[in-house]
Amino acid sequence: MTNTLNRFMEEHLLLVDDELYSLVEKIVAPKTLKESMLYSLKAGGKRIRPLFVLAVCQLFNYKQKEAYTVASAVEMIHTYSLIHDDLPSMDNDELRRGKPTNHVVYGEALATLAGDALNTLSFGILARMENVPANIKVQLINLLSIAAGAEGMVGGQVLDIDGETRLLNLEELEQVHINKTGALLRFSIEAGAVLSEASEEERSILVDFAHHIGLAFQIQDDILDIEGTSEELGKTAGKDVASNKSTYPSLLTIDGAKNKLNEHYEVAISLLEQLKGDTTVLKELTEYIVRRNK
Amino acid sequence: MTNTLNRFMEEHLLLVDDELYSLVEKIVAPKTLKESMLYSLKAGGKRIRPLFVLAVCQLFNYKQKEAYTVASAVEMIHTYSLIHDDLPSMDNDELRRGKPTNHVVYGEALATLAGDALNTLSFGILARMENVPANIKVQLINLLSIAAGAEGMVGGQVLDIDGETRLLNLEELEQVHINKTGALLRFSIEAGAVLSEASEEERSILVDFAHHIGLAFQIQDDILDIEGTSEELGKTAGKDVASNKSTYPSLLTIDGAKNKLNEHYEVAISLLEQLKGDTTVLKELTEYIVRRNK
Repeated sequence: MTNTLNRFMEEHLLLVDDELYSLVEKIVAPKTLKESMLYSLKAGGKRIRPLFVLAVCQLFNYKQKEAYTVASAVEMIHTYSLIHDDLPSMDNDELRRGKPTNHVVYGEALATLAGDALNTLSFGILARMENVPANIKVQLINLLSIAAGAEGMVGGQVLDIDGETRLLNLEELEQVHINKTGALLRFSIEAGAVLSEASEEERSILVDFAHHIGLAFQIQDDILDIEGTSEELGKTAGKDVASNKSTYPSLLTIDGAKNKLNEHYEVAISLLEQLKGDTTVLKELTEYIVRRNK
Repeated sequence: MTNTLNRFMEEHLLLVDDELYSLVEKIVAPKTLKESMLYSLKAGGKRIRPLFVLAVCQLFNYKQKEAYTVASAVEMIHTYSLIHDDLPSMDNDELRRGKPTNHVVYGEALATLAGDALNTLSFGILARMENVPANIKVQLINLLSIAAGAEGMVGGQVLDIDGETRLLNLEELEQVHINKTGALLRFSIEAGAVLSEASEEERSILVDFAHHIGLAFQIQDDILDIEGTSEELGKTAGKDVASNKSTYPSLLTIDGAKNKLNEHYEVAISLLEQLKGDTTVLKELTEYIVRRNK
């Protein structure tokens, strides 16, 4: 990782965590529920989505603390989706980022409810932001609802489950990932632009950029499932192959998947070059996503 | 039921259903997911929360179609909570309103996701309302997030689960119900006032009213669990007694519970009498809630 991205992470990651945890700690709710919500929020996520929100805000010189609230909202949605995905009725995972999953620690009922509460809370914290005009809040809430719901992440999850019972072609596989992982990454990037009141043109370039890094992110995930170790990943490697699941490597070979990853990476970088302003952090984040080993 | 309430229901219930179903039908999402969402929305709910939204809007002469959107948002939250409550890891109910529960028909994974999608969608439809000022939408979204989340309904559900392992006292039992059922009823009533731009004083009287009918509603539920039949209720009667659960009748005797119900009913009615305007429908809805046999 380069110095610029390192400095950016050092500057922001602790502040994201502070905001994220304090937004949960200050609500008045049963102790076990808050514990269960915080357990998964604190389970060592890479905070990729928050970093994209903040990188786009930095590009447009938006410096208000509300950037951390938007970053927290998307991380809450991401975290709730992991809690529900790990449930026995879904992926039945007992380990996530090297730690026992939420339902293993708190039981299935509480894990389900902690996910529900995080989903709901993310919209409330956007509505309660102080120095953001109401029409911007409404735009953010609308985008988050679309990205997180049946038309986005949850819809992608359903397609993914359908895909477990039959082999998908490349187009179907892309559709899964555009929804399942892509929608929330897109929200992160677009939300930074909306909050910063960027121009329509800038916003549209960034949405296009988000599309390509969303797919690059997922292709790298599929490659890591083959080339990574369980220890590095903090979850069971080789699950996709073992379960005969359609992935980019299974459809394109591992080299084909790497070429595809590189194509998306290059288009993403060329889109950033169309933007005025300093896109160093966004470029390095993109690089970080495609080169990561976990 | 009286003629006024009957006419009110005839005027509004079909329009609520139209709005509710079309809001789901028009989203672009996997077919099975939409089916699963619609299955539970169409499972014959009494639409009590929507009726309260509409009754308050009528009181303040708010006649825009957005009243049906707000009514739909609260019904989506209510429905998602039933889907998740019925899951094997929660109440493990196979029958709801006389029909197989969502997970019995669609499987646990899809039922979980259909609930998630309804939760998320409810905030999106509020954000997308056309003829409502952005600051009003933000207020409604904030109220719904609090009412539905860890500080409201989901929190109440956690307290309820905790209460299954030990006997609650009356204060604790009230706390469960103020959150579990009360919060969403309160939202319905308060949302009608916010949407209609009622005065602070009117809103505060209605919130107080909501508190009492919320408790009355739950006490009647507990009484019906003892005095109702499974056939009337469309769910298993006598479950509370069989599971040794703390209820109003178990803490106060059945006559004590009926007295308590009547107290809340009378306070609720007297609060309505403090309001200007025609509260006939609200009074009759209150009566309907405390006299219902299912």
